[in-house]
Amino acid sequence: MYTSRISKQTIKRLAIYYRYLEKLHKEGRRTVSSHEIGEELGLKASQVRKDLSYFGGFGKRGVGYEIRTLALKVSKILGLTRSWNVCIVGAGNLGRALLRFPGLKEKGFRIVSVFDKDSAKIGKPVERDLVVIDVKRLSEIVKAEQIEIGVITTPAADAQEVAELLSKSGVKGIINFAPARVSVPETASLEEIDISVAFSSVAFGIITSEEDSD
Amino acid sequence: MYTSRISKQTIKRLAIYYRYLEKLHKEGRRTVSSHEIGEELGLKASQVRKDLSYFGGFGKRGVGYEIRTLALKVSKILGLTRSWNVCIVGAGNLGRALLRFPGLKEKGFRIVSVFDKDSAKIGKPVERDLVVIDVKRLSEIVKAEQIEIGVITTPAADAQEVAELLSKSGVKGIINFAPARVSVPETASLEEIDISVAFSSVAFGIITSEEDSD
Repeated sequence: MYTSRISKQTIKRLAIYYRYLEKLHKEGRRTVSSHEIGEELGLKASQVRKDLSYFGGFGKRGVGYEIRTLALKVSKILGLTRSWNVCIVGAGNLGRALLRFPGLKEKGFRIVSVFDKDSAKIGKPVERDLVVIDVKRLSEIVKAEQIEIGVITTPAADAQEVAELLSKSGVKGIINFAPARVSVPETASLEEIDISVAFSSVAFGIITSEEDSD
Repeated sequence: MYTSRISKQTIKRLAIYYRYLEKLHKEGRRTVSSHEIGEELGLKASQVRKDLSYFGGFGKRGVGYEIRTLALKVSKILGLTRSWNVCIVGAGNLGRALLRFPGLKEKGFRIVSVFDKDSAKIGKPVERDLVVIDVKRLSEIVKAEQIEIGVITTPAADAQEVAELLSKSGVKGIINFAPARVSVPETASLEEIDISVAFSSVAFGIITSEEDSD
């Protein structure tokens, strides 16, 4: 229902609002204004109100938002009130880092399987009670474990093939960390994280601030 | 000089254009149109032209952009024609993953030091010829190694302290992978990568596509 009206940027901001609301809630706060949210997150209060208004504008003038109600609504919107079975394809350092990444489990993302094609890795234990599984068994395991989200942490050269394998196996959402863009059927939800872009972006920021101070 | 007119989103798109131009160049292509770039990257041709026009609009109507010239200009804009000394703070899985991350070195980002506060890690070799250094020595090493970019891969609880330490030590750009927002002086260039946001965003995409097909 919401899809067509909400941009990816809005979704990302909602996830950031959510984390901030969680923090305030833990601090024992009850209400927060759009101004305060904006101030904290470097956004205009009008942007905050606009984002939150998509979901019924539950703020009260002069009082602000009731933190617990807002956090619950935002978490529902973000799919955080249910849990998701996740698999990782690529048992290298990045895949292992995600296995231990704090907050994923709390937010309902349960990593239930890790795949690799390297026979030296297959069968070896990784984090917790998981053992690396041969990627050839991906389709079977995705069905057996009801995996809905697949994470690609393979080398760039394997990313597209893995994306296709995940889609064909019935995974509904894909997060790609490999440094190569992939394409998936339109029915799948895709998020691409390009780590080197963050480096370029910071480098550009440094160069321009040097130019500014010339 | 460019700073105030160019948004972060534009910079990110430029980095993506750059990767696509590199690919075309390797394939032996000479020219490319804004339509083709847009098609490949899921953007409107008008958006592509607008982004590239910030830098002098070097496309020719009916011919398109000369790939090599454009890639060179974009790479200069992105700060990719010079090299940057980088340090990583936090020698866990994510820090190690970045050490081996393909493409960073090629793009001029040289990881020259890795720090941690854990005495069990200090002095141990990590990737290549690097050994984990006590974070207490960060300031000294940043100066000695002329480090300009610092990457935070610590637990959330340590992120702000590390960000401040990096800034005070003279690092000009910070990339934060820890799941906590940090604040740095305005003079520093900051990029925050929130991995859990990618998961929330994909989950949201799945939920909304399920609602669409109801």
